[in-house]
Amino acid sequence: MEWLRSEIKVKARHHGLHEITEHVAEELERLDITDGMVTLYLQHTTAGLCISESFDTSTVHDLEAFLENLAPKGESTNHHAAEGEDISATNKRAVVTGVSLSIPIENGRMMLGTYQGVFLCEHRRQPIERTLLLRVLTI
Amino acid sequence: MEWLRSEIKVKARHHGLHEITEHVAEELERLDITDGMVTLYLQHTTAGLCISESFDTSTVHDLEAFLENLAPKGESTNHHAAEGEDISATNKRAVVTGVSLSIPIENGRMMLGTYQGVFLCEHRRQPIERTLLLRVLTI
Amino acid sequence: MEWLRSEIKVKARHHGLHEITEHVAEELERLDITDGMVTLYLQHTTAGLCISESFDTSTVHDLEAFLENLAPKGESTNHHAAEGEDISATNKRAVVTGVSLSIPIENGRMMLGTYQGVFLCEHRRQPIERTLLLRVLTI
Repeated sequence: MEWLRSEIKVKARHHGLHEITEHVAEELERLDITDGMVTLYLQHTTAGLCISESFDTSTVHDLEAFLENLAPKGESTNHHAAEGEDISATNKRAVVTGVSLSIPIENGRMMLGTYQGVFLCEHRRQPIERTLLLRVLTI
Repeated sequence: MEWLRSEIKVKARHHGLHEITEHVAEELERLDITDGMVTLYLQHTTAGLCISESFDTSTVHDLEAFLENLAPKGESTNHHAAEGEDISATNKRAVVTGVSLSIPIENGRMMLGTYQGVFLCEHRRQPIERTLLLRVLTI
Repeated sequence: MEWLRSEIKVKARHHGLHEITEHVAEELERLDITDGMVTLYLQHTTAGLCISESFDTSTVHDLEAFLENLAPKGESTNHHAAEGEDISATNKRAVVTGVSLSIPIENGRMMLGTYQGVFLCEHRRQPIERTLLLRVLTI
């Protein structure tokens, strides 16, 4: 068994869900991993990670609207605003989506379901370059 | 240390939370695991996994109502409907509940708290047979 | 590679988010871990774990209000009340926040982002002493 460490930089094209499946898959290929498990860890508090439908692109828009409605920008409970008026709402959405995710790997591929993709949830209005840590246990 | 792979098929009796603690425990027993950690990974986008109260069964009904209210079926932000009118709502609930879960194992048992159980969250109206991957690091 | 097991007791000072970063870091130092990954597992159904902003303390209050609004105490879907009138609401919030979390470790430190902290989400009105399991894969 071996323990491999890597990190990639990801930046959404715009606010919302941004698929990173291929980006992660390429890094796993570069690390030459056959079997094991990858844990993804996002080092941010205004963005998140999720697994969702990657086949029908309308899902992404529905999820974006859902997360915005769940924690809207103009809410009265948004006091944290030192770094921008959308910060508090993005902190809230980030707690719902989470920052840590483990995915099994087999035959060099992440064992995603047929319709699953890995997404960066960029909760901020202005996308930022994000650091995603990859930690792999390989056999 | 050893790395074990397995998968089980789970199907909820009806829409909502369906306890799978025993189902997972039996598979761990079959694999003869004493100590380590299991990671459960659900390969679907319209169902999720969660740990919740398994003792008082009224909790399950409260949680089902909560998740339905959080992402209702008839919402205006539900555009993804190619595979059924409840698809978009189920995608949203699946992002809230998540598909990946790690649980420590000791003396052959998952280290769940006294009141904790493992649940399949079947977000679709018509339950589907679901594939749950088990990956175990055992010592 | 080595597999280490530990547990700590954590108790929030009051209802809401309670930072436990230092508490966990001290335990990892005591275990003398340099590199690897820690999985935190909370054995409760009315509390959760999350990673969120630890720098600006107003975030904590915003998140507390957010979680309370998401699953309010007096809701009509709260039937589970055998152990207190806030139980059902706390079960709901616990499903949103989750109980399992994996964080990479390097040079003896959790690889948290600059603004990230680890929080116990104490969803109950009266804080309870909580058991947090630590499982570490170290290299």
